Amino acid sequence: MVNGYDAAAGTELAASDRELIRRRERVLGRPYRLFYREPLHPVRAHGAHLFDADGNDFLDAYNNVPVVGHSNPRVQEAVTAQLGTLNTHTRYLTDGVIEYAERLTALFPAPLTQAIFACTGSEAVDLALRIARHATGGEGIIITRNAYHGTTAAAAAISPSLGPGNPIPDTVALLDAPDSVHGPGGAAAEDVWLAQVRAAIASFAARGIPCAGMIVDSVLSSDGLRLEPRGFLGRAAELVRAAGGLYIADEVQPGFGRTGAWWGFARHRLVPDLVVLGKPMGNGMPISAVIGSPGLFDRFGAEVRYFNTFGGNPVSVAAAGAVLDELEDRSLLAHAARLGTLLADGLRAASAGDERVAEVRGAGLFLGVEMVDGEGRPDPAAALGIVNELRARRILVSASGTGENVLKIRPPLVFTEADAERFLDGFAAALRATR
Amino acid sequence: MVNGYDAAAGTELAASDRELIRRRERVLGRPYRLFYREPLHPVRAHGAHLFDADGNDFLDAYNNVPVVGHSNPRVQEAVTAQLGTLNTHTRYLTDGVIEYAERLTALFPAPLTQAIFACTGSEAVDLALRIARHATGGEGIIITRNAYHGTTAAAAAISPSLGPGNPIPDTVALLDAPDSVHGPGGAAAEDVWLAQVRAAIASFAARGIPCAGMIVDSVLSSDGLRLEPRGFLGRAAELVRAAGGLYIADEVQPGFGRTGAWWGFARHRLVPDLVVLGKPMGNGMPISAVIGSPGLFDRFGAEVRYFNTFGGNPVSVAAAGAVLDELEDRSLLAHAARLGTLLADGLRAASAGDERVAEVRGAGLFLGVEMVDGEGRPDPAAALGIVNELRARRILVSASGTGENVLKIRPPLVFTEADAERFLDGFAAALRATR
Repeated sequence: MVNGYDAAAGTELAASDRELIRRRERVLGRPYRLFYREPLHPVRAHGAHLFDADGNDFLDAYNNVPVVGHSNPRVQEAVTAQLGTLNTHTRYLTDGVIEYAERLTALFPAPLTQAIFACTGSEAVDLALRIARHATGGEGIIITRNAYHGTTAAAAAISPSLGPGNPIPDTVALLDAPDSVHGPGGAAAEDVWLAQVRAAIASFAARGIPCAGMIVDSVLSSDGLRLEPRGFLGRAAELVRAAGGLYIADEVQPGFGRTGAWWGFARHRLVPDLVVLGKPMGNGMPISAVIGSPGLFDRFGAEVRYFNTFGGNPVSVAAAGAVLDELEDRSLLAHAARLGTLLADGLRAASAGDERVAEVRGAGLFLGVEMVDGEGRPDPAAALGIVNELRARRILVSASGTGENVLKIRPPLVFTEADAERFLDGFAAALRATR
Repeated sequence: MVNGYDAAAGTELAASDRELIRRRERVLGRPYRLFYREPLHPVRAHGAHLFDADGNDFLDAYNNVPVVGHSNPRVQEAVTAQLGTLNTHTRYLTDGVIEYAERLTALFPAPLTQAIFACTGSEAVDLALRIARHATGGEGIIITRNAYHGTTAAAAAISPSLGPGNPIPDTVALLDAPDSVHGPGGAAAEDVWLAQVRAAIASFAARGIPCAGMIVDSVLSSDGLRLEPRGFLGRAAELVRAAGGLYIADEVQPGFGRTGAWWGFARHRLVPDLVVLGKPMGNGMPISAVIGSPGLFDRFGAEVRYFNTFGGNPVSVAAAGAVLDELEDRSLLAHAARLGTLLADGLRAASAGDERVAEVRGAGLFLGVEMVDGEGRPDPAAALGIVNELRARRILVSASGTGENVLKIRPPLVFTEADAERFLDGFAAALRATR
């Protein structure tokens, strides 16, 4: 795993943390991983800041779940009030889930007018796959080379970024994301991309695998944040539909305003058949959704139905409503767009003349810094070096990408200008320290 | 679906509920179903009682999620405090999830000393299947004829109770549950059961499908609550292990004290390889878990790893800790055992001489009443009639079972003696009204 803690590396840790890690390894075991050469042990958090037991202030430039800020009081109040009133399931008639679904679906273009709620992005991805396979009778799914879509068996089967221990079945076709650093740009990049889509469809056809569709994170987060050329996803969707498949937009990472727009797919002049929502939706309260059209949901609902005990429960829905209130009342989409530009400009200024930095790219408050070696090849060690230098300066980011060489900068949307200034100072210092 | 609302049946409803159902159908669509001929529209809840907007008091004898009571103040306080302090993920070091995992695993026999957290029972079942398939290299899974294990693609594939629109693959073997009404009893019932287990294993072997294991709800809830002969699951587990598979106990329904013991598998002199937990774990806050041994988790963790963004988050863990506090401090396991006996005795007394009631059975506060027709065959219409007669008396239960003819009585564990009295009066009246 990129940026994982390695006990064997012998990092010096406080005795209390060593003991806690020992207990953790005994009771949670090996499937669990910690971040950083020196793990973070937060005890409280507020806005875009986490604090350890000594009161040290860590700037959170990584976590997209607390989109309206850690310990957001409006979310807390909504959850508390609902927990003291009613928390049940969708087989009773309750107002909140209907009101929230109306409010949420109003944020999508026609014909995306219906919502199905679950608890995690993985569950929503899994459900979207079930609906796509049911609607098309197909099995083949097209994804990107280093995609991550979740942890259920079906979601893991389309998540090659989980590594070689997680085999990908031959009904899944992998496409290389457009590479703005090493590949061609503009129309040529799109040609290369669309040729891969056509080849994947042809390969399914040749092997007698009907195409169920394509699912892509609208900003290709785990492929290293691939944003250009604009429209490349829209044209891929047209090819997939012509082959009988559905286009599923995975908005678990870009959704809810991070890119400066409500949904990342808007960049691509694209109306998906299904949209998957998760992480920031309830600011940390588990809630996710699949958004779709009555045409698709009717068929699935009539023959298969769907019930998720905690999915759309009144408490999670109250949190999700408070998130929309905050995003709207504090104009956080416009803020993300404006502050994202400020951060991107600042990152470019700080790395001007530094040949290790191949590119700074971003969409709103989702930014990537691609690190390369002297020959221009992906340099994961350089990226990890910056991540840990920032960690030493109490600034939290991570790295991702096919080459594990792209800094992943993805702060809560309540990140302030002062936070941005601290971040940019820290970044410049980390660059200097690793030169 | 058993006990589903049917708009076409033309039940007379309040205009406001008709309008809300219309909005619900427009925005949530056909995958969603409501309970009852006349849907319930609660606006608040407390203990084992739900209230509608007119203040009518509905006795909850059905919902197992709010195990320590609707709107439990201790759970509310724990959630509120944690939401105002810290809510993050398991890639940072935090104390709560470790302390809770230690407390939870201490409730299991050796070698079940480790926990992996997810958000829903479906996710936990899905993960347990992944671990079992990884550990054994097998694919074949043995389940019961009318099992329900969840809604992810992998969990739905072992959930025949979802109906004919949800096909079951041929790597899944179905066993008929021991039938205390129509089948033989005692040792003969166990012989019939074990012969099926052997046949399933032999069929896998004949078709070249390596056996991954067996997963059974420890009280066979959706097969109609099958409790006897005690030990039949333990001996099945031995056969499955001899065939190279794992035994997975699905404790999503019986777990956390409902049967009067912490776990339903205890009835069967059985130590499972993996245990799946869910529903009541956080009293409605989404949290679930897979419990297992380091031997199994090490192998899976080393090669596959597992991360669930919301899984084991500090807020859900705080709720889960408060649930254990309540179960222990209020002695709710002993209460479930005592009140369950009182209810079972009362149900038997009320139905004495009524030939429609073939059997009253139960384990703690999980009770079933099996309804049959004049020829002794399963009578789903009789069961549904009682369900709706109880609903008219503001008492909530449902029906389940292979024949959809077993009343499912599964109240919050804070059900009081007064609640039990009201329930038994209502049951007697419903029997009279449907005679």
